[in-house]
Amino acid sequence: MLTNRKTIRVEWGDCDPAGIVYYPRYFAYFDNCTAALFEAAGLPKPQMLKTYGIVGIPMVDTRARFLVPSRFGDDVVVESSITAWRRSSFDVKHKLYRGDALAVECTETRVWAVRSQNGGIEGQAVPKDVIARFETPATP
Amino acid sequence: MLTNRKTIRVEWGDCDPAGIVYYPRYFAYFDNCTAALFEAAGLPKPQMLKTYGIVGIPMVDTRARFLVPSRFGDDVVVESSITAWRRSSFDVKHKLYRGDALAVECTETRVWAVRSQNGGIEGQAVPKDVIARFETPATP
Amino acid sequence: MLTNRKTIRVEWGDCDPAGIVYYPRYFAYFDNCTAALFEAAGLPKPQMLKTYGIVGIPMVDTRARFLVPSRFGDDVVVESSITAWRRSSFDVKHKLYRGDALAVECTETRVWAVRSQNGGIEGQAVPKDVIARFETPATP
Amino acid sequence: MLTNRKTIRVEWGDCDPAGIVYYPRYFAYFDNCTAALFEAAGLPKPQMLKTYGIVGIPMVDTRARFLVPSRFGDDVVVESSITAWRRSSFDVKHKLYRGDALAVECTETRVWAVRSQNGGIEGQAVPKDVIARFETPATP
Repeated sequence: MLTNRKTIRVEWGDCDPAGIVYYPRYFAYFDNCTAALFEAAGLPKPQMLKTYGIVGIPMVDTRARFLVPSRFGDDVVVESSITAWRRSSFDVKHKLYRGDALAVECTETRVWAVRSQNGGIEGQAVPKDVIARFETPATP
Repeated sequence: MLTNRKTIRVEWGDCDPAGIVYYPRYFAYFDNCTAALFEAAGLPKPQMLKTYGIVGIPMVDTRARFLVPSRFGDDVVVESSITAWRRSSFDVKHKLYRGDALAVECTETRVWAVRSQNGGIEGQAVPKDVIARFETPATP
Repeated sequence: MLTNRKTIRVEWGDCDPAGIVYYPRYFAYFDNCTAALFEAAGLPKPQMLKTYGIVGIPMVDTRARFLVPSRFGDDVVVESSITAWRRSSFDVKHKLYRGDALAVECTETRVWAVRSQNGGIEGQAVPKDVIARFETPATP
Repeated sequence: MLTNRKTIRVEWGDCDPAGIVYYPRYFAYFDNCTAALFEAAGLPKPQMLKTYGIVGIPMVDTRARFLVPSRFGDDVVVESSITAWRRSSFDVKHKLYRGDALAVECTETRVWAVRSQNGGIEGQAVPKDVIARFETPATP
């Protein structure tokens, strides 16, 4: 499975009065990391939405465990990969490292979503060629 | 157990290009709801930090399930309560309603945290009088 | 001219490691206050966009002066009004008070914007009935 | 004068239902760019705060003009420099480019701020060695 690594600078404005990252900001980091993972697979988000006629890959379930706090000025590294594909949804895992320490772990379940006829949002089968892009090519 | 209800207006800037709430914003809503729950128990956050010498109640584990999307202009209602106390941590549950529909469910585990001697953050036993404030008085 | 007053609770997550509001958050407050001003004039944003076929009222120029800092737990009050209408743009003024003190002053120039044929965004004349809603009825 | 260039990826969560950057996010970009400018001058923010005993460089006045909208997936480039030093305050200018187009212009006035005796925040003279770091070395 394709794994993407993304370095993120923790900014002053990401931190709260305790001086550590305000945890909702981690979810924004992870959302950016999922977009970066798709881009690493050849699917930058603007083109992906246009090519497949989807409105996005909205979240249906996410959980994060915060093990080590980070502070403004830190450069953290996030490793992201897709851990499961289902018909119209899929799971992503992020591991955020501060130096060698695993600092935050996050799992996501997202939906491959199109605009429904009533103007809402509904899942649709993930195209096979999308899934194929995340498979690590076999070594000869 | 004390339950607090808080109405939140979904703002334009809380929403993403799909026109629905950008999910990290829900976690900011829930963080605000936990603060509101403590305030309903007589512990507004600034005074609570000063009275007990804590740096905050940082998150160690949170999970949210997103069932129904919300849009700018919606008024959603969040019901929040504490579901468990442990020595230095506790669990919070939030249920966000859009009209009658349960739209988002969130669970949190937070730590009662003080500044440690090395400048970091560490857990400390939650004071008994804090816990007592969340107990519903027995009816006679 | 119609003036709207909106009370805003400064939240923990709105503040930075110096313990005061992270200033970009003030602009989100003011964006919410402009939406509230239009709603007070009978134009909640979702309906306004639908009724007039606009994509929004994007910002073209904004300036804020920060006179007094605010902290989490503060309730601040923002007074908002429209100070000028032009063909396809208009000016908004916000005064944010912390107690009796004027804490932040902000001016905005926004555009009444529609989707252009090439998919971009362009200004359009503000409808006369929109402008009329902000006029204070003359006292007899 | 030292000029710093910083490339910023516009993320999905930076954009609003109109599909363009939610303008308060630009101010967060610019705050990050000012931090990057100081870091380019040899003053990463965490060390700068510790070395000089300041609480930060809070904003007292900022203005931005938005000329061209940006969308998620865009990489924009911000050029930042300090345009004036006064006793305890200074001005920063940011120019954000989308491709060759100047898309946003921003000016800032910030204060070199220390914790005052009453727990508030007050200006202090900017150290001469800080200012010297932003001067372009004379060519021989």
